[in-house]
Amino acid sequence: MGTVTKAAQPYVAFETSPEQYRHWRLSFDGPIATLAMDVAEDGGLRPDYRLKLNSYDLGVDIELADAVQRIRFEHPEVHAVVITSLKERIFCAGANIFMLGGSSHGFKVNFCKFTNETRLAIEDASAHSSLKFLCAVNGICAGGGYELALACDEIHLVDDGNSAVSLPETPLLGVLPGTGGLTRVVDKRKVRRDLADFFATLVEGVKGRRAVEWRLVDAVHPTSRFKEAVATRVGQLATASDRPHSGPGITLHALDPEVSDASVTYRHVSLRLDRERRIGHLTVRAPTAEQPSTPEQIHAVGDDWWPLRAFRELDDVLLRLRLNEPEIGTIVVRTEGQIEDVLAVDRVLVEHSGDWLVREVVLLIKRTLKRLDLTAHSFFALIEPGSAFAGALFELALAADRSYMLDDPERPNAVALSPMNAGLLPMSSGLSRLQTRFLANPELVDELLAEREPFDAPAASDAGLVTFAPDELDWEDEVRLAIEARATLSPDALTGLEANLRFAGPETLETKIFGRLTAWQNWIFQRPNAVGDRGALRAYGKSGARPEFDWKRT
Amino acid sequence: MGTVTKAAQPYVAFETSPEQYRHWRLSFDGPIATLAMDVAEDGGLRPDYRLKLNSYDLGVDIELADAVQRIRFEHPEVHAVVITSLKERIFCAGANIFMLGGSSHGFKVNFCKFTNETRLAIEDASAHSSLKFLCAVNGICAGGGYELALACDEIHLVDDGNSAVSLPETPLLGVLPGTGGLTRVVDKRKVRRDLADFFATLVEGVKGRRAVEWRLVDAVHPTSRFKEAVATRVGQLATASDRPHSGPGITLHALDPEVSDASVTYRHVSLRLDRERRIGHLTVRAPTAEQPSTPEQIHAVGDDWWPLRAFRELDDVLLRLRLNEPEIGTIVVRTEGQIEDVLAVDRVLVEHSGDWLVREVVLLIKRTLKRLDLTAHSFFALIEPGSAFAGALFELALAADRSYMLDDPERPNAVALSPMNAGLLPMSSGLSRLQTRFLANPELVDELLAEREPFDAPAASDAGLVTFAPDELDWEDEVRLAIEARATLSPDALTGLEANLRFAGPETLETKIFGRLTAWQNWIFQRPNAVGDRGALRAYGKSGARPEFDWKRT
Repeated sequence: MGTVTKAAQPYVAFETSPEQYRHWRLSFDGPIATLAMDVAEDGGLRPDYRLKLNSYDLGVDIELADAVQRIRFEHPEVHAVVITSLKERIFCAGANIFMLGGSSHGFKVNFCKFTNETRLAIEDASAHSSLKFLCAVNGICAGGGYELALACDEIHLVDDGNSAVSLPETPLLGVLPGTGGLTRVVDKRKVRRDLADFFATLVEGVKGRRAVEWRLVDAVHPTSRFKEAVATRVGQLATASDRPHSGPGITLHALDPEVSDASVTYRHVSLRLDRERRIGHLTVRAPTAEQPSTPEQIHAVGDDWWPLRAFRELDDVLLRLRLNEPEIGTIVVRTEGQIEDVLAVDRVLVEHSGDWLVREVVLLIKRTLKRLDLTAHSFFALIEPGSAFAGALFELALAADRSYMLDDPERPNAVALSPMNAGLLPMSSGLSRLQTRFLANPELVDELLAEREPFDAPAASDAGLVTFAPDELDWEDEVRLAIEARATLSPDALTGLEANLRFAGPETLETKIFGRLTAWQNWIFQRPNAVGDRGALRAYGKSGARPEFDWKRT
Repeated sequence: MGTVTKAAQPYVAFETSPEQYRHWRLSFDGPIATLAMDVAEDGGLRPDYRLKLNSYDLGVDIELADAVQRIRFEHPEVHAVVITSLKERIFCAGANIFMLGGSSHGFKVNFCKFTNETRLAIEDASAHSSLKFLCAVNGICAGGGYELALACDEIHLVDDGNSAVSLPETPLLGVLPGTGGLTRVVDKRKVRRDLADFFATLVEGVKGRRAVEWRLVDAVHPTSRFKEAVATRVGQLATASDRPHSGPGITLHALDPEVSDASVTYRHVSLRLDRERRIGHLTVRAPTAEQPSTPEQIHAVGDDWWPLRAFRELDDVLLRLRLNEPEIGTIVVRTEGQIEDVLAVDRVLVEHSGDWLVREVVLLIKRTLKRLDLTAHSFFALIEPGSAFAGALFELALAADRSYMLDDPERPNAVALSPMNAGLLPMSSGLSRLQTRFLANPELVDELLAEREPFDAPAASDAGLVTFAPDELDWEDEVRLAIEARATLSPDALTGLEANLRFAGPETLETKIFGRLTAWQNWIFQRPNAVGDRGALRAYGKSGARPEFDWKRT
């Protein structure tokens, strides 16, 4: 909770588009896109701070996430992206400290989480969409600025005697680099741990040849040759792409949900809030209209295609939940429609996965489901007659902390698997949700995937695909009591519980960032040594103020 | 910091022996040892709580750790251990809540860490010493009691209609199971994550057949057949051991260091405290006397053998640092002696690793170095003329956050590797410290290990074996400034920084427990929802008191 006076937290919406950007300039030159940071000082989400020196807040990162998404969908002819700055001698000063100082603990954590996911989306585009990123660090590059650079495939630093990369959070602010910096330094770039220790305690950072020798950047170039070297190298990076040589892409139109105090309603997704009980009812509807089945038809339909639209809506609603509805702790997940309609879409997604647009849609579904895995709310899936928990939509039940399926012989109710459950939508751990579920019996995964018929409640329960399958006599009480009980538990303990249980199995760079780094950062972020009256985050920027620490190590 | 009134924290010493035990009965029957918990209610480390229902505090766990260690060294004829309870219908109620409620945040965290290490020592004995553990759960088994059971190879539960296993921390106390419970449930026992979610939110736990079906226990037996079933099964577990069929073992005598306010002095290890600067000077001395070179000689020398004695001393001093010296944030690590004397011991350790006692000594060195990796203090190794950073002792430099080696051509100063650096002393991640260090260039590890000659400062620096190698002109200032600068940084940020940088590379059950679970628990442990005036930990046990939560999810 800390003792900092918190500014009023504005409602955050996540939709934007290039013509609305205030902080980034997105330009195109054949296969190369350039994303240039030019943060508007007065363009913060709140009025209590100014975004000096290309420092950023959530609004700046929302634009970055939007730009990366649009390059993927709207500009398939782009094969490589340069990320750079339009400010003189400044690449990016990192997250704005005064913004952090005035933010609630929960906002800080969710800000870091979203920013991390944006970095991971860049890495996802590189790994799976053949879209490479070069960071042209043309000035000082500190904290979150360097974390953005770390997310790129290559980091090129100008060698002007001044520009350096740094992670000064620990010495300056008494916290950690919050968006994966430490993990990416030692695990992605494999900087030696003792050098990383030195680097991460150094306010001024590292520049020039030493930055290359320590693996902190890939190359340094003198000012006079910097632009040319970057242009040459990004041209090389672009040549290996398997994306189309020309457009057009499709346009991602605004989702424009209907928002009231009690609900957020999209075309295929809706969220209804029961504020008194602190429960959200989230419903995803299967397609009802005819869906395209060939790449040509899919490209023609564009962002009206059901899987793209439905999962963009789901992504948007999850972000709104995180930032705007922290008290709605339990989310009841339902689906509506015909299983067969979902399975038909899944067949098209799998059959045409070689098409660049279909590939992007599958990757977007994957990222959205990861977002759900990483959302600090409890999810209970209710599988009732009329639901459509099949294939990609069944992942919602697998991602949920628990699922309840009504077993009423008089009212047919089934779930179904599809090839979409077989590894195309991995969790952050690299495992599919079925593999995670059946860690104890890995052979079950293939057996279940081979089953062509839907599973009714007894079959789903026997197979371990659902948690509980109460009959019609027990259903109402059992489900109601389970949801009510969940809503009485400590929200902090639930966040920790879920962060541990959801990620059984192997750890990866991604899971390390969220499970190890972020967890430590959460703790540090609310210690008096950071946010107390004399904590380092509060002392920052006050002339003459030095933090006072309780020196006990913990 | 919380708002709970903290009881005065007694100085904790970690040495004990069976004749001093107040809480455990250790008995022997041929190849089977029985460790029976019988906690003395009035035997707590502090007077402000009573250890009812076989609940435990740090003192109880210190005895458990001692017992496991002594079985390994003093009773090689023991091949399997039964852990059970002498209390009627109660196995163990877990960590004592009133003890937790009255403890500082730092004490709670370090208590959980030590308890976890004790659990891991049980698993280490099973995996590497051929010593199997069967937990005979003969009554209610809650929280940390179940976490103890989870550390055993098999869990047998009495089926008396009453006895259940449970992790009630979240519903009862608003915190997480603190000693690995969640990780062991889903990662070790591979309980399905949705069932684990249900289980870990259930105060009353799970019993009988369901406990077996959900993989929470391995077997249930009716009361009438329980003892016999346990005896039969532990007999089977004992048969696969490669430990000797008969003793004697060696005796682990008390280390009895000389302790003053400014120092702790053992035979081979000493710690000098500079309280004003918050710096500890830790020195490990190489052997000076003649060391045994054959198993017969080693067994005859017993716990006087240098590597056993020196690393027992190091282990003890690390524990004292953690619990009793939280403000001594920076530890300067030095060694003294002849490199060749350390390398000679290493050769014996490697050559006779098939001997049960030598194996135990190597495993103890491994566990001690892991303890160092997990100690939340900064370690800087100073490699100066007269030091003996070779082989197993060079692991101290590799484990340190940084190392400084004096490069003075006029004063010979060298480090050396030995086969002990080649994988016999892995970190929690499973990698050797050299492998972790050279993640970017794995081929370097074998190249360096092939080098028979010691490395002088330029060579060590070129090889990447030390962080910095200042010359005699720079040495004093550079080292002094580095240590002073370290001591000014936020102790919380350093704890998080080190927890991230030290564990580059793969994650394992162990690293997940410390890096993911414990980090979340740290955070939850100091939130007002747990330790505030109306937090769940404070409300526990007060009649009619219900916790009041800030419902925001984070």
